[in-house]
Amino acid sequence: MAEIVSINGEISRPSDAKISVFDRGFLYGDGVYEVTRSYGRVLFALEDNIDRLYNSANSIQLKMTHSKEDLIKELYRIADAADQDDIYMRVVVTRGEGRIALDPNLATKPNMVVFVQNLPVIPQDFYKNGQDLITSSVRRNSKQALDPNVKSGNYLNNILALGEAKRRKAYDAVMVNREGLITEGTTWNIFIVKDNTYITPPDNADMLQGITRKIIRLVARENNFLWEERFFSPDEVKKADEAFTTSSIKEVMGVRSLDGALINGGKPGPMTLKLAGVYTDYVKKYCREH
Amino acid sequence: MAEIVSINGEISRPSDAKISVFDRGFLYGDGVYEVTRSYGRVLFALEDNIDRLYNSANSIQLKMTHSKEDLIKELYRIADAADQDDIYMRVVVTRGEGRIALDPNLATKPNMVVFVQNLPVIPQDFYKNGQDLITSSVRRNSKQALDPNVKSGNYLNNILALGEAKRRKAYDAVMVNREGLITEGTTWNIFIVKDNTYITPPDNADMLQGITRKIIRLVARENNFLWEERFFSPDEVKKADEAFTTSSIKEVMGVRSLDGALINGGKPGPMTLKLAGVYTDYVKKYCREH
Repeated sequence: MAEIVSINGEISRPSDAKISVFDRGFLYGDGVYEVTRSYGRVLFALEDNIDRLYNSANSIQLKMTHSKEDLIKELYRIADAADQDDIYMRVVVTRGEGRIALDPNLATKPNMVVFVQNLPVIPQDFYKNGQDLITSSVRRNSKQALDPNVKSGNYLNNILALGEAKRRKAYDAVMVNREGLITEGTTWNIFIVKDNTYITPPDNADMLQGITRKIIRLVARENNFLWEERFFSPDEVKKADEAFTTSSIKEVMGVRSLDGALINGGKPGPMTLKLAGVYTDYVKKYCREH
Repeated sequence: MAEIVSINGEISRPSDAKISVFDRGFLYGDGVYEVTRSYGRVLFALEDNIDRLYNSANSIQLKMTHSKEDLIKELYRIADAADQDDIYMRVVVTRGEGRIALDPNLATKPNMVVFVQNLPVIPQDFYKNGQDLITSSVRRNSKQALDPNVKSGNYLNNILALGEAKRRKAYDAVMVNREGLITEGTTWNIFIVKDNTYITPPDNADMLQGITRKIIRLVARENNFLWEERFFSPDEVKKADEAFTTSSIKEVMGVRSLDGALINGGKPGPMTLKLAGVYTDYVKKYCREH
């Protein structure tokens, strides 16, 4: 039973997993979520995911019903039911069901849906040769309107950017802010390398503060790698020595090109591969210790 | 059978109406919607709603499966099944179900959910004495990121503003753009009256171009009322002779106060009531002719 769904603790097959159309997640995207993955049977960096889930919920005044400790236990119970190595787990918490109207006070009982699936298969070619990106014409949501650091059920902004990338035959898209500076990709953070320094947009950018990005900052510091957090433009990416992206599912992946301009001659560079290796070491250590 | 739900044409009771948790409306708010109402048995301004629904769908590259004519027939079929005067009808079209990943191409068959309910009861007091509004600290989404003129399943921006209004004991909230100028309310357009002129933000504001607003523009022109479309600030609202809001459900409703500052001494003014009357005349004429 590899692929399962839990709705408020009740586990079912994906094809049987249904929710009321009065759920505010369905009506308004009024909910929050997290994605975590396991290496073997260890749900990687789960504490970080849980912290961020509660932060997201708090940002939209959604009251979580579990304690963090109980939620971790519940997610392991669901993972055990799937009984499989290397899973993708998505935890969705909505504000629940209520009469149709915008007022968030109309729903008082959150719904929690947990999806367990096989990890998506990402062709090794993308790690060997890098991904082709575009700069999306869709601007990233601003923190003042809909904070990208809240992982919510409102993902149309990112979907429109990714759809544009697919229409332009690219793998994915970076998104810029009002000033035309890059904040993040559709589901990942971005880095460039210039003069042996790893550079990534600062925490206060209109972006999700990725857990992989946070771990990479940690291991970069432990290894005394040169590190800088500042904004950069698409042009600067094109002129960079290297570029790569980070996410928990795709880990560290090099960038082959942006808007058709090759980076590092069109292949992941040594600084990218070095960081990917250090990240893998961190994952292995984490899994040994958990 | 007053309150019903249709899922892809199949009509059920609200409590039985369920959708797959793999529907992208639930996962990402990846869908569009419209709300219309009937007066008696006439679905008011339905052609306008349908046009806007298709425009919204087109903006997010969601392919509608019905023709406009067939959809109108289908909505009347559902309204007939409800067999009741004065209904609230919500039409939700999502991109459908697919493997969990952002790429919009993963879902190819839209789901259409139509809700029929009783019209919400709005206390007459709000029409007699006006509503108390606040200026939300949540900025309206910008057109470049997530166009408010696309009526989508991403309504968290508006929900956060309305939630703030409720916490501040107000009825509802106006939202401003980056420049601090008002664009619209959480589910309605806004007007002020100054020196006998009706003033409302321009079409290119970060707002939904309301159908009620459009009709009001039409009847104002027919009646040679003074009319201006330009931005204004919350301060200008406070100093206005009158202020009111428009929506298809709430129609024309006066504003009693903004951020605690009384407008027109705290009651709907004569220009507001005059326009409300002219709008009601338009509705009656429309219903006679349809």
